[in-house]
Amino acid sequence: MIKMIKDHFNKELRELISAEEWLIVREEYMPEENLAYESLFGLANGRMGNRAAFEEGGNKKTLPANYIHGVFDKSEAFMRELANTPNWLELKMYYLREPFGIEDNQELNDFISVLDMKKGILFRSYTVITESGRKTKIEKMKFLSRANSYLGAVRTYITPLNYGGLFEFENRIDGTVTNFADFPRFRVKHLDTLEINDLEAEGAFLKSETRDFGMEIGTAAVVDVKNLAGEDILKSKQFRAFGEIACEFFDLELQKKETVVIDKLAAVCTERDQEDVYQACLKNIKEFKQQGLDSELAEHIKEYQKMWSKADLILEGDQKMQQAIRYNIFQLMSTPNPDDNQTNVGAKLLHGEEYGGHAFWDTELFVLPFFNWTFPEIAKNLVEYRYNLLDKAKENARENGYRGAKYPWESADTGDEECPAWTIEPDGTCYRCYVADYEHHVTAAVTLGMANYVKVTGDQRFMKEKGIHILLETAKFWVSRFSYNQEKKRYEILKVTGPDEWHEPVDNNAYTNHLAKWNIDFALEKLKEYRKAEPALYQKLCQQYGIDQKLIKCWQQLSEKIYTVADQGLIEQFEGYFELECETINEWDQNKMPLMPESLKGKDKNEICILKQADVVMLMFLMDDKFDLETQQTNFDYYEKRTLHRSSLSPSIHCMMGLRVGDDQRAYDYLERSAYVDLDNNQGNTREGIHAASAGGSWQSVVLGYCGMKIDPDGVLSFEPKLLAKWSRVKYSISWQGEILDIEVFEDDLKVSRRSSTDGQKIRYRVNGRERIIN
Amino acid sequence: MIKMIKDHFNKELRELISAEEWLIVREEYMPEENLAYESLFGLANGRMGNRAAFEEGGNKKTLPANYIHGVFDKSEAFMRELANTPNWLELKMYYLREPFGIEDNQELNDFISVLDMKKGILFRSYTVITESGRKTKIEKMKFLSRANSYLGAVRTYITPLNYGGLFEFENRIDGTVTNFADFPRFRVKHLDTLEINDLEAEGAFLKSETRDFGMEIGTAAVVDVKNLAGEDILKSKQFRAFGEIACEFFDLELQKKETVVIDKLAAVCTERDQEDVYQACLKNIKEFKQQGLDSELAEHIKEYQKMWSKADLILEGDQKMQQAIRYNIFQLMSTPNPDDNQTNVGAKLLHGEEYGGHAFWDTELFVLPFFNWTFPEIAKNLVEYRYNLLDKAKENARENGYRGAKYPWESADTGDEECPAWTIEPDGTCYRCYVADYEHHVTAAVTLGMANYVKVTGDQRFMKEKGIHILLETAKFWVSRFSYNQEKKRYEILKVTGPDEWHEPVDNNAYTNHLAKWNIDFALEKLKEYRKAEPALYQKLCQQYGIDQKLIKCWQQLSEKIYTVADQGLIEQFEGYFELECETINEWDQNKMPLMPESLKGKDKNEICILKQADVVMLMFLMDDKFDLETQQTNFDYYEKRTLHRSSLSPSIHCMMGLRVGDDQRAYDYLERSAYVDLDNNQGNTREGIHAASAGGSWQSVVLGYCGMKIDPDGVLSFEPKLLAKWSRVKYSISWQGEILDIEVFEDDLKVSRRSSTDGQKIRYRVNGRERIIN
Repeated sequence: MIKMIKDHFNKELRELISAEEWLIVREEYMPEENLAYESLFGLANGRMGNRAAFEEGGNKKTLPANYIHGVFDKSEAFMRELANTPNWLELKMYYLREPFGIEDNQELNDFISVLDMKKGILFRSYTVITESGRKTKIEKMKFLSRANSYLGAVRTYITPLNYGGLFEFENRIDGTVTNFADFPRFRVKHLDTLEINDLEAEGAFLKSETRDFGMEIGTAAVVDVKNLAGEDILKSKQFRAFGEIACEFFDLELQKKETVVIDKLAAVCTERDQEDVYQACLKNIKEFKQQGLDSELAEHIKEYQKMWSKADLILEGDQKMQQAIRYNIFQLMSTPNPDDNQTNVGAKLLHGEEYGGHAFWDTELFVLPFFNWTFPEIAKNLVEYRYNLLDKAKENARENGYRGAKYPWESADTGDEECPAWTIEPDGTCYRCYVADYEHHVTAAVTLGMANYVKVTGDQRFMKEKGIHILLETAKFWVSRFSYNQEKKRYEILKVTGPDEWHEPVDNNAYTNHLAKWNIDFALEKLKEYRKAEPALYQKLCQQYGIDQKLIKCWQQLSEKIYTVADQGLIEQFEGYFELECETINEWDQNKMPLMPESLKGKDKNEICILKQADVVMLMFLMDDKFDLETQQTNFDYYEKRTLHRSSLSPSIHCMMGLRVGDDQRAYDYLERSAYVDLDNNQGNTREGIHAASAGGSWQSVVLGYCGMKIDPDGVLSFEPKLLAKWSRVKYSISWQGEILDIEVFEDDLKVSRRSSTDGQKIRYRVNGRERIIN
Repeated sequence: MIKMIKDHFNKELRELISAEEWLIVREEYMPEENLAYESLFGLANGRMGNRAAFEEGGNKKTLPANYIHGVFDKSEAFMRELANTPNWLELKMYYLREPFGIEDNQELNDFISVLDMKKGILFRSYTVITESGRKTKIEKMKFLSRANSYLGAVRTYITPLNYGGLFEFENRIDGTVTNFADFPRFRVKHLDTLEINDLEAEGAFLKSETRDFGMEIGTAAVVDVKNLAGEDILKSKQFRAFGEIACEFFDLELQKKETVVIDKLAAVCTERDQEDVYQACLKNIKEFKQQGLDSELAEHIKEYQKMWSKADLILEGDQKMQQAIRYNIFQLMSTPNPDDNQTNVGAKLLHGEEYGGHAFWDTELFVLPFFNWTFPEIAKNLVEYRYNLLDKAKENARENGYRGAKYPWESADTGDEECPAWTIEPDGTCYRCYVADYEHHVTAAVTLGMANYVKVTGDQRFMKEKGIHILLETAKFWVSRFSYNQEKKRYEILKVTGPDEWHEPVDNNAYTNHLAKWNIDFALEKLKEYRKAEPALYQKLCQQYGIDQKLIKCWQQLSEKIYTVADQGLIEQFEGYFELECETINEWDQNKMPLMPESLKGKDKNEICILKQADVVMLMFLMDDKFDLETQQTNFDYYEKRTLHRSSLSPSIHCMMGLRVGDDQRAYDYLERSAYVDLDNNQGNTREGIHAASAGGSWQSVVLGYCGMKIDPDGVLSFEPKLLAKWSRVKYSISWQGEILDIEVFEDDLKVSRRSSTDGQKIRYRVNGRERIIN
């Protein structure tokens, strides 16, 4: 396989391509797969994400996009969304003015596209034969620099195989891009083009701004054109503006079998972090040009090396799962910006337009754990993002008639609720969307995520300075969210939606009530702790929040009277759930995923027992210490038969819960479902972006599920591995107490070693309850 | 055939389509023919010309263009050219967001496209089957209103044949258009988009301006959506701007086999004749909407009826030639604006981008005669165009070191020389173009055209007020252009290029010297005439031009000493021509067109005897009275063997000269070459526009050639018909002495009748020298 892969490329690229285990390969060109591969092979470098659209243009099945963290806009869309920014990729190729490349009417042979996850490079190669019989070999390599995240580059080798002559090219920056380009009803242009120029004769420059907030974006691109001997063979070059397209036309002569190497170097800067986007582009481009693509690439590869040294997961004995887990890690770790605590991770990462780049509870419960354990500095940004938007969450609570802080169901840059009250359906009907009205559990998820961050990283300073405010404000929200049922003498949450969105709204959703109670209890616990251990801080908090013993008492009493449905035994998802029409699942599709029972098809989902996704099971998963194993088993057995997993958030939870309750085979089915969701496009929507929650859930499934890693109540790192028989070894790394630990899990053993050679503190850990120490 | 054609269309369209003899039919869809058909089926209404690009978009082989008389721009182009203005055609069709129409990946059946020349309507019909098997019938009809030339419209019938549901559409105005869109090296965007709005909720509006002169252009488009019962079935509509694209999104429901009729009504106004283009568009659109497409269409058809009643030519016994001549007349008469004497007729009409919409000598010697005889009011505009630019021609003479007026080789709106001194070749090399430097005969052509206009129309008032100034200024130019050869005691024109551009520059080109002499002699003749008949005018002219007997004497002496090479016998094209390496043509291609003799291939064209196009033969043709028949025969025989006709101006001249000297069979070959140039795309460049000179030359060939119509020296209309044996009857009309005469030519007879029933003056005419009278 690796020989076959490398055979497609020239010596220089062959030497660059990593070992096979690091590669995802598209071996065949089928246009209908383009959009999914554009997401799948999308690159991100912490600042921007760039879909793997072909630089050649020329085919219609394409949705080129370049997203930048924090660049949101609403305009005529029904929600504020990550704006598609100018396409800096395009390099159009012509011979005698006839375009060649990936054209609908040209023959493509020996196509291959390779994502090198180790280095964060996308390779591509093919031979194109035009209608006139001219045969050209194209080889390409693209990266978004991780060393300087303002930069991206594409190197293109062009070799005419059976002809020679004059070649023409266009280096373009396309400002005409829209969101939902192939969806006429929803298509929106989020940017106005302000200025196009030749970047002081360096190349091409385009300045745009978002239409609502007027945030400026500068996009610059230049080309460096050489033959294989490194000689400049550019013949002529001229700059042109075509409306919103900046274009450098250039030409050169090639002999038969002579190769030209065109490096397209790009810089993208925004007003988010640059005073003058033009000057910033100019400076970046000049430096990039001076040092050259190879030098930047070398720095870029070094950065990926560092990242992998913290986050790689080796899974021996299961090649496909190994590849999938690496893929999920690759996309997860490539996405957030380590230097930015104002942005988060969208539900589709930076790889597609679905969900507008908004952060959901997916971040805290699925994605954040990965970062807590591997990149705590990124995890900190993610929790600080919520802290930074605490005031907006307070506003959001007030506006909805509550107190404290209510986090939005969908969050972008401002912290406003981005989940629209009304949406437009593909058929043009207006749809009243109640998610933001009823689905309140995200606020507990934010708190829980923050709490877990502190638990894993030990970042008590964050807790004291920022986390405690999130905690108290969210507790205040939940206190105000409950209503007292005089008759039944209990506090209830009425009209609410739990994780299972097919039942909306319901009364007393067990998941929500439990998490709300936990949120209040955790606040009380922290206050108690700080009263003793941090009296100054405690005093300050009391003053700020008007906390006194009376209030604490009041919260305690409320918490005690919260109706949590049940604590043990079979838990009713919400009041009345057990009365719904029911039949358990009895058919599965070819991917072993459950199908709606025949008798319930077409019925109102509110009226039947079938769940969209884990709800009580999710509760069990998160509140491990609240439910005994028998209860967990009972509920898993019951709800597993009623869950369709129509959310990509569901399978990984069922995997981990399956492992916990001893359902190993189904666990692996769920892991496959989760880990392969984009590689296999098993939900058919990879074109819309990469499933962030699945990626995080898959990592959790292996590390927290199969390897059984957790933190014991006394704060000691602990493992109860339940490796699959075919997995001969799992190796991964974590950041623990300021050090990197390498964990190796075997069928019958587990090894933890510290990376640093300097003497650290002794580290205690437990394997299946037996304590060990690393010196 | 007509049944087959009509079978493609619904009842309403069937009833609209004219008789078969008026139709040009494209029966098959082959994408590679799109560009040629876009020119061929281009419509023009005197104000604008609109190529027959598909409104559906979706295919790549297309060059949509909307040209407006007088809207020129240079920007980065190497010459000022007719600017492509916003594309108002687009109506994109979607079902479940999937586009359908003429898409590269969809099956097209029963395609037909029909140009109805009688009514100036373009029809189209086809069935499209998408990849998912949805089958839809599309029928279309488009016209540019001749009744109100600011308006254009497209009616579209859409019938889903095997499905139903929600359809979505986009009514778009595309301001991203460029010239040379598929020619990256030459691609230029001539317009900036200034403003996009919803036209006060009426539809879509886009305002642009030319980049050099800032001339504003308003483009507006609205849709009217009904079912066949005339009921409004629009569901929703919303306006969007996508950068330089104005867009109305709208949707509607269709049952299986239900038909929707979408009328797209457009208005295009410019600052050339409107104070405020927005208000003008709004007013036009409102009125158009109110009265509806059908009412405007009825007016439009009436206008074409009037035009055909003046210009139709019936040619019985030769169906293909009949169709071709009608086609040429259709495009010629549709192009110029009867209300505008500031614009001319471009070498490619308003149908393509080649030659930048510039007027050449083609206008005066090929196109103008048609208008002189059929639409004298348009002919007048064309000669007044030259008069209006006389000052610029004087400047042009001064700048080149001459006196009087030197008309530019290529003329646009300003009268500046638009023929560039330097051009860029397709391979990027700069090419020094000497045409404007040396090819001076256009100035004589302008004068000759004007003189012929006056001769045919009898418009002596024009002659006295305007024509005389053209005549005197051009004569002054020629006087200054000659140099005196002391040794040979003669006036010569050195370093000049004649019509045959392959010999450049030469000394004493017979054609140029003769026409220059004619120009001076005609000036002298007119002065002499006016001195007697118009003493007041004569006095004024003498004062204005400093004319006295001394000067007249001087011009006379110069004229007498002009070296015209020869007046009889074989005339050397220029000094030294007979010494060039020579071989006569001995091979012809499948179209009976001559090929370069093998021994001369690849040689410098300046060094060999082969001509690009008629030169001495052209001289014979124009200066009939200067050369006896034997001389004409001698020269025709000689040069015909040496002419490759690589200009579309050449064949019609050879046709008429062939007839004159008795070479009937070759004459018809040449007529075919000329008349079919675009219908058969026999030069392969129809995609670039319609050959105006060929169209005019073909009309002349039939009327002045085969029907032998001319004006005898005594001013009497005269005929010496030489009909082809297979032509049983030729019938055409002319405008003569303020009346319309119908001419019918039979093999052995000729009939002239007056259209008007009122008593006019008696009209004398001659047939083969024998005089007749119409009462």
